[in-house]
Amino acid sequence: MSNPEQDSDAAPVQNVLFIMCDQLRWDALSCAGHPFVETPNIDRLAGRGVRFNQAFVNGAVCGSSRMSYYTGRYVISHGARWNQVPLEVTQKTMGDHLREIGVPAVLVGKTHMRPDEQARERLAIPANSPEWLFLSECGFSPEEHDDGLHPDVRVRADLPYNEFLRSHGFSGANPWHSVANSVLDENGELCSGWLLRSAPFPAIVPDELSETAYMTDRAINFMRNAGNDRWCLHLSFIKPHWPYVVSDPYHAMYKDEELPPPNRTEAELATSHPVIQALHKSRIGRAMSRPETRRLVLPTYLGLVKQIDDHLGRLFAEMDRLGRTDDTMIVFTSDHGEYMGDHWMGEKDWINEEVVRVPMIIVDPRPQADCTRGTVTNELVEAIDLLPTFVEALGGENESRSQWLEGESLMPVIRGQESTRRDFVVCEADWGFLEMARHVPGVDTPRLQRATMLRNERYKYVLSEVGPNLLYDLEEDPDEQHERCSDQNFDRVVADLHEQLFSWFRRRRHDTTYSDEWINTTSEPGNTAKRGIMIGYWDEEELAAGMRGELY
Amino acid sequence: MSNPEQDSDAAPVQNVLFIMCDQLRWDALSCAGHPFVETPNIDRLAGRGVRFNQAFVNGAVCGSSRMSYYTGRYVISHGARWNQVPLEVTQKTMGDHLREIGVPAVLVGKTHMRPDEQARERLAIPANSPEWLFLSECGFSPEEHDDGLHPDVRVRADLPYNEFLRSHGFSGANPWHSVANSVLDENGELCSGWLLRSAPFPAIVPDELSETAYMTDRAINFMRNAGNDRWCLHLSFIKPHWPYVVSDPYHAMYKDEELPPPNRTEAELATSHPVIQALHKSRIGRAMSRPETRRLVLPTYLGLVKQIDDHLGRLFAEMDRLGRTDDTMIVFTSDHGEYMGDHWMGEKDWINEEVVRVPMIIVDPRPQADCTRGTVTNELVEAIDLLPTFVEALGGENESRSQWLEGESLMPVIRGQESTRRDFVVCEADWGFLEMARHVPGVDTPRLQRATMLRNERYKYVLSEVGPNLLYDLEEDPDEQHERCSDQNFDRVVADLHEQLFSWFRRRRHDTTYSDEWINTTSEPGNTAKRGIMIGYWDEEELAAGMRGELY
Repeated sequence: MSNPEQDSDAAPVQNVLFIMCDQLRWDALSCAGHPFVETPNIDRLAGRGVRFNQAFVNGAVCGSSRMSYYTGRYVISHGARWNQVPLEVTQKTMGDHLREIGVPAVLVGKTHMRPDEQARERLAIPANSPEWLFLSECGFSPEEHDDGLHPDVRVRADLPYNEFLRSHGFSGANPWHSVANSVLDENGELCSGWLLRSAPFPAIVPDELSETAYMTDRAINFMRNAGNDRWCLHLSFIKPHWPYVVSDPYHAMYKDEELPPPNRTEAELATSHPVIQALHKSRIGRAMSRPETRRLVLPTYLGLVKQIDDHLGRLFAEMDRLGRTDDTMIVFTSDHGEYMGDHWMGEKDWINEEVVRVPMIIVDPRPQADCTRGTVTNELVEAIDLLPTFVEALGGENESRSQWLEGESLMPVIRGQESTRRDFVVCEADWGFLEMARHVPGVDTPRLQRATMLRNERYKYVLSEVGPNLLYDLEEDPDEQHERCSDQNFDRVVADLHEQLFSWFRRRRHDTTYSDEWINTTSEPGNTAKRGIMIGYWDEEELAAGMRGELY
Repeated sequence: MSNPEQDSDAAPVQNVLFIMCDQLRWDALSCAGHPFVETPNIDRLAGRGVRFNQAFVNGAVCGSSRMSYYTGRYVISHGARWNQVPLEVTQKTMGDHLREIGVPAVLVGKTHMRPDEQARERLAIPANSPEWLFLSECGFSPEEHDDGLHPDVRVRADLPYNEFLRSHGFSGANPWHSVANSVLDENGELCSGWLLRSAPFPAIVPDELSETAYMTDRAINFMRNAGNDRWCLHLSFIKPHWPYVVSDPYHAMYKDEELPPPNRTEAELATSHPVIQALHKSRIGRAMSRPETRRLVLPTYLGLVKQIDDHLGRLFAEMDRLGRTDDTMIVFTSDHGEYMGDHWMGEKDWINEEVVRVPMIIVDPRPQADCTRGTVTNELVEAIDLLPTFVEALGGENESRSQWLEGESLMPVIRGQESTRRDFVVCEADWGFLEMARHVPGVDTPRLQRATMLRNERYKYVLSEVGPNLLYDLEEDPDEQHERCSDQNFDRVVADLHEQLFSWFRRRRHDTTYSDEWINTTSEPGNTAKRGIMIGYWDEEELAAGMRGELY
């Protein structure tokens, strides 16, 4: 249990640096045991803080996962179930909660949040009001907002990164595509990075002008200008997300390494589960399962990771120079992983460890965290735990946000205090928005094309709205190769987990317009009568007793 | 199944008259079999339309139940779980859906809706904008908005009903209380209608100036002025809700009748269920269970019902004169019932039939409904079914509102078409806001002081977040005197109903910013590539196939 005296002694941190990578697997770092990639700068973070070895996202795709990070709420509670699904304007984000304690949430990079323009019109929120700008930037102050996806067919004319590339001599309508995300192929022809065949060639952009370098520069620039103002900076890298191309020398750094074999078996292809079948057969599943994809794309993916680590080294050195290392909490994580052909799948959107488990490292510079520096914990933690952690670290209260925050502050773990953590984590996956959806049997409600995963220390249980439910015994089967739901030996386990998941569904904070305190005020004895609503009293005598709170 | 040709032939109705009483039990009408109350005008509605004999509200208290009627959504979906809980500004109401088809929702009477001022400030919605006025009136155009609760401590200075009483010679700061809801007692002393002892005396206000008369007049006045404009008029009576006083002659109309015995047994008092125990012991439970309450208050309650029926007679006669009878759908219902001492309880807030079952009559004047006139149906229907019924009757589409509407149009039943209705209804009850709440063991989440009732044609299953769950076999035990959840003979029934309820929780429409159509558009083969997001393609050839929709 936490020690209140110790807690109250802890001065808040000055700042929070919240670093997120996109599509970074939990196991692609040397501190997490990768066989050959070396990420010394990220590893040094782990050495200075706590590495959470069992950290999970709450949504299996960028949009839903990020909205959980930004709202501190499960996907079913924030409602933005997939990419491009607008976030309800009533959902409070990190920026709402942190500005209440006087700290702005600042963005460099990606949010993947889409504002709800229909609600804006219905509610007559002025489009140029500070309030709408706040909402439409997902509550962040956008030092640099760049979601990192700029197809030629809909590129922003004034995209700052394109302006930046142009200022360095790269012309064209969309240098993001033609320079930063394209290569010259074996014939010297320009080839788009969208195509997987471009992966082994160096990006046309040099490393120092790459998106990763640029975003790092923007973060450094922000820190320099911020002086002693407090901030929570969300440095949200666009990589190692596709397009899978990377600048020289990273493109060739791992091409000769002996790659670990993919986590897949022929037996998996015999599944009768209609959703898994469709994911296998989909374009993305097939493309990412090709031998040449693993041979040519995986080294590039790992090069993108190495590139991030190198630029983080620059950032951390600058923080040392600025004196920010000692007063800033640093968090490193990812919005989800990438199958990269494991389980015969590609990308994300489903519930295996390759997708839902992410790296998570937290460095708290304060003395109270000294006892956990350099440790690794197997506590089950979720993306939604970060926001309450930030609120607490920055000196705010989580209790008053009871209707909003569904995660739990990680500060007790960071301080080595006895844990009262939850028994399981939950991640939600939707396939209805994918092109493979029409190859899966329908559901009575089109939006119910989803699965909900409950994972505890031993088991992963997946309640799929189509097809049978799934159970994996991760102790016996960490690679999730043996589905156990129909094995009668596990009937009791399945029944227990099913009931736990039912309880989880009922505990969601869908009712957001009142706090827990308000409930207690309303039910105070005598409160109704004092407000003039005098029910259940026979006469004046009883009423007087009621007003004194003697009759409930 | 519905016949599309027949459907498309049906011209929309011109108007909808949506009459709601407050706290009116399902069985307090002569058409529902009451032993002595006569409600000929309401009965005539039943004779002209369909009486739904198994109609249920979705919330067990005014506020939550009404928000379900007005939004077409279950309580867990609209979030306004109790009285005074603000409705989220993003929740669309009847007014939103009907204005999209060109018909305003007009209010005379009560809504019990509280606007979310905190959200207004956060979103910078101008307080005097038409949009905020629309939201703050729950989407209604307020011909007369009067929630009918005006305690002296917080009466509106400009309450129109008070002005009306003053214009008829009744002075004072709050004639709503001192005239319309007070009596002269046996000693000729003024006695507040808030006190139950005032029930047998006539209200000071004469019938023709009573709230029921006044609201009826306002509805008549609206109809006269509306001419041929289309409307959906919500005539929302404040009565027979407490304060339990009624004007002469209604106060004495049933005082000598032989009252049916209350539905309660000594055995019920031996319950070990902590919520039911606390409801029994609460001030309201005890007050409403006294013999003198039944003897003196119940006749007044029934007098209030009779008074409504008489004034509805005036309204219907006026509709005849105006030619509105033939072009207006008329709906009569209530927001919940009243225990009146049954089960040793008072008021509402729990899940017995006395509370959750309500009267519901629908008259559709169109020829397609001729085949069901004067019939009684036992189809299970819910409050949330009315809004989709209105949308369909007025010529709108329900499909495009898929993320909003959780009910089902009753038009097939009204047209005598084969039913594909739901298997059960659900009502949610919260006790955490009641003063008795602190006499119930706590829950881990303060807001989780609630129960969810599933009722099918035979059983009522209640999942209570505190105490054991409950099962009643209504076929054997229509009075709900024998709880069966711990009876092993019902294990299979309980397990089935529990699982059905779990499925119900998962099907709620919490994600409101996108429609079902949008899901299908997003997943269209080739859609991703056409939007410039070209993932899972090895080379130009595959990409071309993808753009043609040949690869999913």
